[in-house]
Formats: sequence, structure tokens, C-alpha cells
Amino acid sequence: MDVSPQVRLLIQNIRLLVFDFDGVFTDNGVWVLQDGTESVRCSRFDGLGLSRLRALGMQMMVLSTEENPIVSARCAKLKISCVHGVPDKGVRLAELAAAAGVDMAAVAYVGNDINDLGCLRLAGLPIVVADAHPDVRMLGLLRSTIHGGHGAVREICDLFSTIIESTR
Amino acid sequence: MDVSPQVRLLIQNIRLLVFDFDGVFTDNGVWVLQDGTESVRCSRFDGLGLSRLRALGMQMMVLSTEENPIVSARCAKLKISCVHGVPDKGVRLAELAAAAGVDMAAVAYVGNDINDLGCLRLAGLPIVVADAHPDVRMLGLLRSTIHGGHGAVREICDLFSTIIESTR
Amino acid sequence: MDVSPQVRLLIQNIRLLVFDFDGVFTDNGVWVLQDGTESVRCSRFDGLGLSRLRALGMQMMVLSTEENPIVSARCAKLKISCVHGVPDKGVRLAELAAAAGVDMAAVAYVGNDINDLGCLRLAGLPIVVADAHPDVRMLGLLRSTIHGGHGAVREICDLFSTIIESTR
Amino acid sequence: MDVSPQVRLLIQNIRLLVFDFDGVFTDNGVWVLQDGTESVRCSRFDGLGLSRLRALGMQMMVLSTEENPIVSARCAKLKISCVHGVPDKGVRLAELAAAAGVDMAAVAYVGNDINDLGCLRLAGLPIVVADAHPDVRMLGLLRSTIHGGHGAVREICDLFSTIIESTR
Repeated sequence: MDVSPQVRLLIQNIRLLVFDFDGVFTDNGVWVLQDGTESVRCSRFDGLGLSRLRALGMQMMVLSTEENPIVSARCAKLKISCVHGVPDKGVRLAELAAAAGVDMAAVAYVGNDINDLGCLRLAGLPIVVADAHPDVRMLGLLRSTIHGGHGAVREICDLFSTIIESTR
Repeated sequence: MDVSPQVRLLIQNIRLLVFDFDGVFTDNGVWVLQDGTESVRCSRFDGLGLSRLRALGMQMMVLSTEENPIVSARCAKLKISCVHGVPDKGVRLAELAAAAGVDMAAVAYVGNDINDLGCLRLAGLPIVVADAHPDVRMLGLLRSTIHGGHGAVREICDLFSTIIESTR
Repeated sequence: MDVSPQVRLLIQNIRLLVFDFDGVFTDNGVWVLQDGTESVRCSRFDGLGLSRLRALGMQMMVLSTEENPIVSARCAKLKISCVHGVPDKGVRLAELAAAAGVDMAAVAYVGNDINDLGCLRLAGLPIVVADAHPDVRMLGLLRSTIHGGHGAVREICDLFSTIIESTR
Repeated sequence: MDVSPQVRLLIQNIRLLVFDFDGVFTDNGVWVLQDGTESVRCSRFDGLGLSRLRALGMQMMVLSTEENPIVSARCAKLKISCVHGVPDKGVRLAELAAAAGVDMAAVAYVGNDINDLGCLRLAGLPIVVADAHPDVRMLGLLRSTIHGGHGAVREICDLFSTIIESTR
């Protein structure tokens, strides 16, 4: 994934990378079982991308509207902290950045739907996945080429890692 | 999704929007487990579409032939009322419209297979999903561009919402 | 699905239609859970096709190599008899046809892989699904245009039904 | 799958065929349930390929980084031995080959991601699946045309079997 010099510069300054969960770590589908419990499709590709970027010192977290034990289960396995059950994600993103002592210009946010609008507008680097909803798809300064749940997170982490490694 | 002026006019007059479940909220697949229980694939995109259209005052419900706890579980989460285990959906649709005090000309119905024929013929606005069975695919005055279970419901709700909002 | 006059004639004489399960009723995938149990993806399209053809008097059954409660669970729901856990399906097909008093020339068999070779060679009308294994794909006098687990069974049943109805 | 004379020669000398699990036997997706348990999608095509090649005397095993009961469950069903929960797969591959008394030149390894790099570089015949991660995709002397979890293992086993059978 080649990126413009402008985006490359933005990535070099990012200190906190925040991901939506559904549609980013998943393909935005949900398998519903007869007892009402759910399951979602994630990608094994993502784990190695998160590890590589974490080793470079990047702070990362998941911020999800959906209150769901799936989110915490998946994030625990991927060793990424998560905040879920958040109706207004924009407000929460600002709080999280402040708590981490990171300016919003140094925050990247990855989303896929209109409940990500607040975050995408606040973040210094708004990112959307290839198959984001049409209403937000044009809002990313960066758009993954890989779909959510099929390695979009990996692609973004690999890009960040390659750029960060090239500057050290 | 651009629509003809005729369909736009029909949408403006719709008071009740009724959805089939399998093939519309799902990709018409069914995962069968060893104990005989099932699961289906829905889309997280659909929820925000239903919320937006509900906030505009549209009455909505699900009408399904299949008697299945999955239908009620998914509909409960989406906060849409559902009637399932209905062999003759055309008759039931007429009853439901009458009970809601809505003329059939003000009813839109979204289906995907031949057990939707009665409803598609009765409804003022018959709608089919992009991947409906060939025997009903041409019966929609409107056909989604997105497949069932991948956001077809969202696309239809977004279209309705945009048109309704533009007239207020 | 248009078919040649030769295949049309064969279909008119079929009295027994036998299906393989995996790859025909399913997409040949298998979801494996941590406890070793499995689940498979079937299509809701298939049920209406089987009902229509059954109402026309066609005898149908499922013949599967795989010994699996999923097969019996799915077949019970679809009201089609099934024989599973069969290593040599060709021998068994001949026995089943004899027991039903049907000549092999009046048997159609739908398969997707090399363990269907015996049946495909014995049956009067060998049928394969669109995504059958390359080693058997050319062995069908008829090949569905729809993939297994996505409505291939429906397409075959609809074709049979349309031809049978046209001769009555 | 036609292969070069060079690869054909290498295959003729292979005594041990080792597979990664996720992304090779699966589509590299993982379905996460609410209780944190997982499921993966495998292909029913693979079983017949492994049986055919095993009957020709090929030693085969699975070597997976991921510690997961799914791997052992699937491998038990496919009657292939497996070693999982292995952080450094290159080292382990060398040990396994030595224990089997097979020179690394006679080892083929099938992988899909960067944690397979060590094995791909050590093996006499490095193989990748069609949808391997870009960082390893060019490292295979052989690349399947079928995706992981959709019959890539079957395609590789069929290729090996055909070549081995042709030399006997």
C-alpha cells in the first residue's frame, strides 16, 4: 500500500491508534444462534500486525459502540485494550486521548460506519476500511485496500510499522 | 441508490415497511450444527438504518415463514417486531396492515423468494433484494443493489430515510 | 437453466433423484469448533425446491460418505430421507434403486467429488454442481450453474419441476 | 495445476510434507463466539487429498504457532499428526525432520504468513497458498491456485499424488 507523502508524515507523528471493532476487526457480519448469542468473523492475519506495531511502541485500543463480550474476548486474545458499549464515541475518543496525554493530531482512528463520524472528524488521521459504508468511505485520509475482517487491521499496522521502521 | 420519480413518490406515501427475514436480513444461508440447531449471518450495517428510519416515524415489522427462535432473537436486538411461523404470508400481511390501519397502497414489502409472491403482489411497493430468487427478482418495483445479509436492509432504510427527510 | 433436448428427455424419465450432501447441500466447507463439533453452511433456497418436486411425486434421498449428525439433522428438517456413513456409495446406490424398484436408467445422482465417481457412472443422469472437484466436473450430463450450499439443489429441483410440469 | 520440470523433480524427492494450519487448512478467518471460544472454516475437499497421498507413503504433519484445540480436533479427524503451540516453527521443523530421518532437501512446507518464514527458507520445497500474505507470497517455489480453507491442501496433495503415481 503506497501512500502520499502527506499521509506518510501524519503516520510518523501518530502516538495513539484507535480501532472500531465491528466492520474493522470483523467483516461486519454477525452470526446469530438460536439462543440469541452471536459470533463474528475476524482474521488471523491481524494478530501479527498488532504485535509488530506494538513492539515499535505504538499505543493502540479498540473503541466500540456495541456492548458485547465478543469484543472483550477478541481483544484479550489480541492483547489490545478495549472500551465497548460507548454510544457517543467522539466524546470518548477525546477523553481517551487526553487520558493518554496524546494530542488529537497524534491520534489515528479506523472506522467503517456513521457511528464513527465523530471520531473520524476529530482524529488527526482518519482511516476507513475498503468496505466502509458509503456515507463515511470518503472521509478517510487513508483507506485500506483490504476488507474488514479479512486483514484490514493487518494492512494498516504493516503500513504504520514499515513507515516507523524506515525513520529509525 | 438513485430511484425513478415514480418509486420516490411511492416511498413518500409508505406508512408500513414489512421485511421477510431469511435472504433479506440474512444471506439466505443457514449454518447447521451437529445438534440440529442453526445460525444465520446478518449484517451489523442494518441496525443503524432501522434506527434512522424508525426515528422518522416509519412502522416496520418482520414477517417470516420460518418458525425459528433466531428470528425473534435478531428482531429483539434490532427492536423490530416480528411475526414468524406464517405459512401464507399474503393473508397475514393484509391482516397486519388492516390492524395497523394502513392501506395496502401504503405498505412496502421486501422479499427474496417465491413464498413472498403473495406479499409482493399485494404491497403498494414491492421490493426485492439484489440476490432474490430468479422467479421473483423481476417483481420488485425496487431492487436493492446490496445482497441480503450484507446490508440490503440498511440500503433500503437509508433510501427511505433520505427521501422522507428531503420532504420535511 | 436451459438444457439440451437429450437431458430434458432423461429428466422426464427419472423416478429417483439422489443427492450427495457435502458440497451439494453445503458449500463443502466445514466450521470446526474447539470441542471438535462441526457446522456446515446450507441454503434456505433448497427447501422450497425440494417441496415443489416432492409434490410432483419424485422420490428423493441423500447418500453421504460422511457419518455425521449434521446430515440427519438437515435432512430431517428438509423432510428428505438420508443414508450416511457409506464408504462405497456406488454399491449402495444400486441397492437403494433396487429396493425402490427403480431401474438405474431412471436414477439421477448429484455429486461433487471423486467419492461420487461410482454413483455418477451408474446413474442414468449424472449431475454435478458448478464447483465440483475438477476430477469429476466433466462427468455430469448436467452441471448446475449455482454453487453447492448456495442453491444448487434448488436450481436442480426447479429444473426438474418445470420439465415435469410441462409434460402434464 | 501444471508445474515446472524443476518443481516436478523436487516433488519426486520429497519424503515429508508439513503444513501450517491457519490460512492453509482454513481461510485464515476465525469465528469468535461470545464465550471467547472459536471456530474456523476448513474444506471437505482436503480429506480425500490427504488420504490419497498418505496411501502413496508420504509422511505428513501439521505445524502450527497457534495453541488451539481446534487444530488437534481437525487433525485427528483428518488422521494427520500435529504439533501446535510452537513459537519458533523453523527450529521445530528442523527437529521434526531430523527425528523423521529426513534431510531438509526432502521436506516440503506449506505456509501463508510471516511466522512461516523460517520454515519456508529451510524447506527443500517451500509452498505458499494463493492468498498468502504479500510478505511471503513470492517465497514459494510453488503457489497453490486455490485459497486456504477452500481446497488448497487438496490441490497440493493431488499434485504430489499425480506426480508420484506417474513415476511408479
